[in-house]
Amino acid sequence: KIHFPLQQRMSFSLSQGTRDYNPKQMAIRERVFNTIISCFKRHGAETIDTPVFELKETLTGKYGEDSKLIYDLKDQGGELLSLRYDLTVPFARYLAMNKITNIKRYHIAKVYRRDNPAMTRGRYREFYQCDFDIAGQYDGMIPDAECLKIVHEILSELDLGDFRIKVNDRRILDGMFAVCGVPDDKFRSICSTVDKLDKMPWEDVKKEMVNEKGLSEEVADRIGEYVSLQGGMDLAERLLQDHRMSQSKQACAGLSDIKLLFSYLQLFQVTDKVVFDLSLARGLDYYTGIIYEAVLTQAGAVPAPAEAQKGAPAEESVSVGSVAGGGRYDGLVGMFDPKGRKVPCVGVSIGIERIFSIMEHKAEVSAEKVRTTEVQVMVASAQKNLLEEKLRLITELWDAGIKAEVMYKKNPKLLSQLQHCEESGIPLVAILGEQELKDGVVKLRVVATREEVDISRADLIAEIRKRTSEA
Amino acid sequence: KIHFPLQQRMSFSLSQGTRDYNPKQMAIRERVFNTIISCFKRHGAETIDTPVFELKETLTGKYGEDSKLIYDLKDQGGELLSLRYDLTVPFARYLAMNKITNIKRYHIAKVYRRDNPAMTRGRYREFYQCDFDIAGQYDGMIPDAECLKIVHEILSELDLGDFRIKVNDRRILDGMFAVCGVPDDKFRSICSTVDKLDKMPWEDVKKEMVNEKGLSEEVADRIGEYVSLQGGMDLAERLLQDHRMSQSKQACAGLSDIKLLFSYLQLFQVTDKVVFDLSLARGLDYYTGIIYEAVLTQAGAVPAPAEAQKGAPAEESVSVGSVAGGGRYDGLVGMFDPKGRKVPCVGVSIGIERIFSIMEHKAEVSAEKVRTTEVQVMVASAQKNLLEEKLRLITELWDAGIKAEVMYKKNPKLLSQLQHCEESGIPLVAILGEQELKDGVVKLRVVATREEVDISRADLIAEIRKRTSEA
Repeated sequence: KIHFPLQQRMSFSLSQGTRDYNPKQMAIRERVFNTIISCFKRHGAETIDTPVFELKETLTGKYGEDSKLIYDLKDQGGELLSLRYDLTVPFARYLAMNKITNIKRYHIAKVYRRDNPAMTRGRYREFYQCDFDIAGQYDGMIPDAECLKIVHEILSELDLGDFRIKVNDRRILDGMFAVCGVPDDKFRSICSTVDKLDKMPWEDVKKEMVNEKGLSEEVADRIGEYVSLQGGMDLAERLLQDHRMSQSKQACAGLSDIKLLFSYLQLFQVTDKVVFDLSLARGLDYYTGIIYEAVLTQAGAVPAPAEAQKGAPAEESVSVGSVAGGGRYDGLVGMFDPKGRKVPCVGVSIGIERIFSIMEHKAEVSAEKVRTTEVQVMVASAQKNLLEEKLRLITELWDAGIKAEVMYKKNPKLLSQLQHCEESGIPLVAILGEQELKDGVVKLRVVATREEVDISRADLIAEIRKRTSEA
Repeated sequence: KIHFPLQQRMSFSLSQGTRDYNPKQMAIRERVFNTIISCFKRHGAETIDTPVFELKETLTGKYGEDSKLIYDLKDQGGELLSLRYDLTVPFARYLAMNKITNIKRYHIAKVYRRDNPAMTRGRYREFYQCDFDIAGQYDGMIPDAECLKIVHEILSELDLGDFRIKVNDRRILDGMFAVCGVPDDKFRSICSTVDKLDKMPWEDVKKEMVNEKGLSEEVADRIGEYVSLQGGMDLAERLLQDHRMSQSKQACAGLSDIKLLFSYLQLFQVTDKVVFDLSLARGLDYYTGIIYEAVLTQAGAVPAPAEAQKGAPAEESVSVGSVAGGGRYDGLVGMFDPKGRKVPCVGVSIGIERIFSIMEHKAEVSAEKVRTTEVQVMVASAQKNLLEEKLRLITELWDAGIKAEVMYKKNPKLLSQLQHCEESGIPLVAILGEQELKDGVVKLRVVATREEVDISRADLIAEIRKRTSEA
C-alpha cells in the first residue's frame, strides 16, 4: 500500500450558475466558434487576450446599476481585484494603456456576472462573449455598417432560423427624450425603462415611467408614440421632418447617420434583416451613437418536437431573445487616458451561450450523432499477444499524422474493439492477425459497410488518408 | 453634445503577475495551440471545459503546502468560491460527479496561483495549462507510455531544441525513503526537499534534510547515493537486484513498471529522450505511481544574440527548466466519490507559458514577420468617389469566403492603401479605377513583386483563391 494521505471525502457540486461542458457540448461549441472566428478573420480582425481579473477600479463606474453584479476577489493582502464583467471595458483599458488609436480585433473569452442564473435559457454566471470591435477615427458609418454585416453573416451561417437586427442611436433616444420633455438628469433612467419594451407591454412601461420615474402622463405618451415606430431609411427621413424631432440637433445627427448606415447596408446586401426601431435602448452606460441588437424571430429556432412539426401551420413569429448586440462607444477609451484622448469605437458581441443552447437542443431533437473525436482509424487485433505489433503500427500512423487509437488492453476482444468504433464513430479499423503479419498486410475494415480489404503495409497510410479525406 | 456621465479618469495598470496578449503574441499562441491540439486529437482525445471557479471545498486539501497560493473570491453572500489552481482537480471532480470511469480528454484553460511572478521567465499568476489525461482501469503502463509519446511528439514538433524527459515513480521514492530509514510521516516532506535538486546542489538539499527536516546524516547520505542515479531500463534492472531497494515491495513494483514502461517506449521510438532519474520528485500530493517531467537541455532553446552564434563553440548543455510534467494519480477521483470508488488516471500538462516565451523570443531574434491577420486581398481605389464600388466588390468577396479588407475612408490615397498591405502582410490588392470599372475588370496587384494584371470581374474570385492557396 502506498503512503497517500486520504482526505475526508468531499461533496462535489458546482458553483451556482456555472456548468461543465462535456465532450459533446465541446464539439458543438467548437463548431460554433469556428463559424464565428472564420467570419471575424474574413473581415481582417486580429485577436487579443486580457486577464480574467482586472484591478477593481478599472471596472468601477462603467456599468451603471449593473455594477452590483461584479464578482470581487477576496482581499488576500495586495490589490483589490474583480472578475471581468464584459470584454469591452478591458478592451478600452488595453487601447489606452498601449496608446493604440486604431485596431480591428476580436476577443472570445469568458465573463462573469452575479446575476440570477436561468440555465435552461442559456443564462449563466460564467459565460462566453464573442466580441468584434473596430477602433479608430474613420469616415462615418463604414465600420458601423461592417459590424451589422458581420452579425448578418454569422447568424445566416449558423442557420438558427429567421432573425431581425434592430438599429437605433443613443443620440436619437436622447434627442427624443429632450423634445418630449424629459428632464436631462432622467435620460439614463428613462432609457433603462424603454429598454424593457421587449419584455413588457407599453402600458407597463408607461406605468413605470409615471409612477416610479416621475414623468407626467403627457410626456410618457409622447415617448410612447415614438417608440412604437419601426422602419428603414424612409422612417429616418420622415423623422428628420418631424416637427418635434427636428428641433433636436443630436436627434438629427443620429437620424442622418441612420440614413447613411442604411445606404451602406444596401451595398452590403443585408437590409432584408435590418430594421430601424425607436424602442431599442440597450442598458449600458457607455454607448454614444448607433446601437443594435439581433433577435431570432422564429419559434422554429428552438425546434418544436417532431410531432408538432408535421403539417404544422405557419408558426407565429415569436421573439426568442437577443443573440447579438452592440453599438458605438466613443467615450470609453478616453476614460482610461490620462489626457482624456478619445478613440472612437464600434463593436458587436455575439450572444454565444444562447446560440450553444439552441444548437445543443437542435442536435438532441434531430438525434444527430455528434462525434467528439476525429479518430480516423482504430488499430485492432484479431488474436492474442499482438500488443507489440499494434504499438509498432500505431507509432507509424501517428508519426505520419494519422489520427489513430488502440485499446489499452493487452488482449482485447475483436468485438469490443469494433464496438468502440461504432460507438465513437471511428470510420476505419486496421486489423492485425498472425496471417496478416506473415503476409505483410493489414486488414482494413470499413465500419459502416463492414467491407474488409487486405492492404499492404506500404500502402496503408495512403489508403487511410484517401478513405477519410472527405471527413 | 451628448449626455454622457464622464467619470473621473482612471489609472490603467494591470493586476500584478497578469498580462495582455497583443495580436502578435496571439498569433504565436495560436500556432503553438494548433500544434498541441493536433497532437491531442491525433491520439484520439475528446475535450471538456470546467468553470474558472469551483466551490472552495473542492480545492481544499489537494495541493499540500501550495494551498496558500489559491485565489479566493470575496464572500458576497452565497457560496465560498476559489479560482482553479490546476485542471487536474476539476477533472477529477468532473469524473466523480458524472460517474465517468473512462475517458481520454484534453483541457486547455487558464489557472490561477498567487505565486511570486517572474514574468520574464514565463511565470505568471494567470497562466494556461494544456492537460491531456487518460482515466480508466487498463493494463499497466500502456496509457502512461502514450503520455510520454505525446510529450515527445509535441516538443519535437515545436522545435524548441533538445530536451530530456525524466521519469521516476512515487512508489520507488517512497520505497527508497523507507529502506534508507526515513520515518513514514516524513515521506512527503522529504519528497519536497528532493524536488529541489533541479535548482540546488546536493549539499544544500542534504543540509535541509538534516537541519530542517531532522534526518540523520547517515540517512541523508543513503538517499544521496540513490538520487544521483540516472539510466534506462538497465538501471531499473540493477535496482531490482539492489540489496536495500529489493527489500521494499513498493519500490519493486515501481521498478518493474519502469521496465515495462521502457519496453513500450521502445516500440513508440522515444527512448532517445527518456531517462529514468531517481532525483525526480514533483511536489504535488496526489501522484501515486509514475511521474515525469520534460526539460529543455539546450541553451539554444532561448537563442543567443546573432553575434554570439557565429563560430560559437558547442554550447554547454544548460537546463532552462521544465516544459511539461505529469504522472499517475489513482486516488484523486476517489476523494470526490461518496463511496470512494477509484478511477485510475495518468496525465501530462504542457508548460505552455514557458513555450510561448521561447517562441516569442525566437520570433524577435529572427526578426520573423509574424502576420496577425489572414487577409488575402485589400480592396483599394485609384481615384476618388469609389467607396460604393469598393463596398459592392468586397461584399462579393466576403460572400464567396475570401478574407478581404477595405479602408474605412471615403477617399483614401492609393499609396496609404498599399502601405497598409505592406505593413500587415496582405499579399494582394484589388484596385478599382474608373477605367477598370468601364472595362469590367479589376487590377490585381501582387504586393511582393508589384506585378499588376487586369482580371475580369467574373474571374477575380478564382484568381485570388489560386494566388493565395499556398498560404
